[in-house]
Amino acid sequence: MNTVELIRKKRDGKSLTDEEIKYLVSNFTKGKIPNYQFSSFLMAVYLKGMNKKETAWLTNAMLFSGSVINLDSIKGKKIDKHSTGGVGDKTSLILTPIVAAAGVNVPMISGRGLGHSGGTLDKLEAIPGFQTNVTLKQYKSIIQKCGAVLAGQTKEVAPADKLIYSLRDVTATVESIPLITASIMSKKLAEGIDGLVLDVKTGSGAFMKKYNDSLALADSLTDTAKAFNKKVIAFITDMNQPLGNYIGNWLEVYESIKVLQGEMLGDLVDLSLNLSGAMIYLGGKALSIKEGTEISKEIVASGKAFDKFLEIVKLQGGDVSMIKHPEKYPKSKIHESLIADKTGYIKTIDNYEVGMASLELGAGRITMEDKIDPKAGIIFYPKIGTKIKKGEVIAELYTDEKEKIDSVKRKLLSAVTVSNQKTTSVKLIKTTMVV
Amino acid sequence: MNTVELIRKKRDGKSLTDEEIKYLVSNFTKGKIPNYQFSSFLMAVYLKGMNKKETAWLTNAMLFSGSVINLDSIKGKKIDKHSTGGVGDKTSLILTPIVAAAGVNVPMISGRGLGHSGGTLDKLEAIPGFQTNVTLKQYKSIIQKCGAVLAGQTKEVAPADKLIYSLRDVTATVESIPLITASIMSKKLAEGIDGLVLDVKTGSGAFMKKYNDSLALADSLTDTAKAFNKKVIAFITDMNQPLGNYIGNWLEVYESIKVLQGEMLGDLVDLSLNLSGAMIYLGGKALSIKEGTEISKEIVASGKAFDKFLEIVKLQGGDVSMIKHPEKYPKSKIHESLIADKTGYIKTIDNYEVGMASLELGAGRITMEDKIDPKAGIIFYPKIGTKIKKGEVIAELYTDEKEKIDSVKRKLLSAVTVSNQKTTSVKLIKTTMVV
Repeated sequence: MNTVELIRKKRDGKSLTDEEIKYLVSNFTKGKIPNYQFSSFLMAVYLKGMNKKETAWLTNAMLFSGSVINLDSIKGKKIDKHSTGGVGDKTSLILTPIVAAAGVNVPMISGRGLGHSGGTLDKLEAIPGFQTNVTLKQYKSIIQKCGAVLAGQTKEVAPADKLIYSLRDVTATVESIPLITASIMSKKLAEGIDGLVLDVKTGSGAFMKKYNDSLALADSLTDTAKAFNKKVIAFITDMNQPLGNYIGNWLEVYESIKVLQGEMLGDLVDLSLNLSGAMIYLGGKALSIKEGTEISKEIVASGKAFDKFLEIVKLQGGDVSMIKHPEKYPKSKIHESLIADKTGYIKTIDNYEVGMASLELGAGRITMEDKIDPKAGIIFYPKIGTKIKKGEVIAELYTDEKEKIDSVKRKLLSAVTVSNQKTTSVKLIKTTMVV
Repeated sequence: MNTVELIRKKRDGKSLTDEEIKYLVSNFTKGKIPNYQFSSFLMAVYLKGMNKKETAWLTNAMLFSGSVINLDSIKGKKIDKHSTGGVGDKTSLILTPIVAAAGVNVPMISGRGLGHSGGTLDKLEAIPGFQTNVTLKQYKSIIQKCGAVLAGQTKEVAPADKLIYSLRDVTATVESIPLITASIMSKKLAEGIDGLVLDVKTGSGAFMKKYNDSLALADSLTDTAKAFNKKVIAFITDMNQPLGNYIGNWLEVYESIKVLQGEMLGDLVDLSLNLSGAMIYLGGKALSIKEGTEISKEIVASGKAFDKFLEIVKLQGGDVSMIKHPEKYPKSKIHESLIADKTGYIKTIDNYEVGMASLELGAGRITMEDKIDPKAGIIFYPKIGTKIKKGEVIAELYTDEKEKIDSVKRKLLSAVTVSNQKTTSVKLIKTTMVV
């Protein structure tokens, strides 16, 4: 096989075979195909697409570029969740203990935040001592002990994805449905799961801003899961405003604690319980998503969810006293309130800008090398469809960098549009696909 | 400016500005933009195209990546010719002495053959001693002395083109009209010419096999020449069969000698005289292409063209005795005749396969590192529209590698299709564009 011929084939809009895709991925991973040829191939895929079969073959080639974890020795079903990312999305921290407490294993491998979007690993590492960098042995042993693990991607899992992702990031080939699908699914399938719940975000704070693009991605992800005989449920959910109110790593841990203690209401709770409900259903511990959601509510109300969270934190080396007494956590040097400059009904929120504002305060990173401040972030109150009054507090800002405050305040105020007429709230769960 | 943003812009089908294109080309040439980003950009250009302005800006950025030769000190017009390449195309060797003898300077920078297509430099170097690798000083001094030079690309001229071309070759981004245009025109404009005659080939032995693609390339080349205020005439000419009968480096020098001595007739002579006629017209020594062609005929008939060729060969270090007595040239170890296996009228010739057959005998190269055998090649007699009879000689094969003969014979026989009905000959010059 000849690399240039294969690039040419995709460039001309033709379909590649299983063998051809394997050849490209395995030789690229081995360093036998140089970056400059693979990036030209990636751009051809970006512009000419891949059909369902090609996407499944690409996923498979990336999956088998490394180890596929075998969790057969662990009793019970293993179900994971993947979200395409957004602002304030801390559902993984909430649903993992709930689902594990319901008797379904959650072997979760997560990523870091980049740009406007947060990452589960960064949130977990805001807990002093919490280790996300575990070996394969520890990974299995933690699941065995408590029914869940919250880990980072190990070197053994889908090394092709890591290489391909780095290249996509610098060659303008990120937003491609077959490439996103293969990247997500190769990692998730390598975890040794039986089923997967997908939370595909849509709206101003999502990578896919348009509903139809989110739907296409959800279709591609579920088709690929089916091709690998995995059970899958996909939700398309709103990301036109932050999920919950807390944005920033420790702030999100804090809000998760409050949800797990049953002290919260609203979109974050609703979505978390629906996702955990779907996972419990896929794990065979409920007869429907609805029943799974009811079970989830009971598990939170009984205190079992919070106890399970403490157990996971302890097993992964985290400081449990901080979870029990979050008021002890170090405070940001600066804490300022943002005051509404107009009265009206909230019409739209540029949620991307809200995420970028939090990043500016220190909560995120522009490049993978940037350091983040776990304390920094925003508590953001406005929700589309509600009313705000000039002069009232609409957000709290936390940072160690005083000079950032003014620009962040301006950014947040201009991210919110208000109307004199009543506006309607957004639908949280837009679509549920059970396949 | 941000490289990823610029790749994204082109990927999304938007037009780049002059400054953006300059940024990409100059930073790539300096090694500040890595190959993997530039190849992704090239694929985006391949698939999304470039408009006239962008193509001219790209040409300009590549042109000014190196020195632009100043030939102002040399009296008279400087006119060059560029052909997009094909099989048996040795017109440069014929028209250069004709045009120089007519009093128009020809500062020609040529390339090497690759794949099925031959290159002027390889043909010239088949002449013992002939130096194509000249310094800028020698380049000027040779033109000054004899009105012409036949040289290779120096390091100083359009270094961006060399880098970009190597990358295109291995990333399936060769056949792109804006990229081909900028590559050709940046080199030609750097020569310090006043005008240019373009021979855009079309047909089975050309890079552009379809007439419409050749027309689009001719349009793009002439538009770009106009953007730089250069006089230009473009011909679209047939490449569905070898030009002349001789294919292979020394064989083509031999056929050129015979044309310059007035001993030949046919498509090669017709095209060479039309091209030289156009160059003489652009050089101000004739009032029309037709008059230029008549002048060319007289120059050949008078012996001035052959004398000028001897003068150029001598000035560039070549062994003039070989040109005067070509029968002295070393012979291939193997010389075999190819016998027609059927009777009929020639309908089509797969000219790409004829070029590849010559390469297989040793006359060409697959990669730039391959050595070529100057003696090797084919004398190929069939022309579309003529009749062949089973048993008659249709080609002569020359090689040092006996084991190649059988496969080349099979290749040549299957490259020719014959019909019982009379077939029509092909039109040599399909279009003449004077702009």
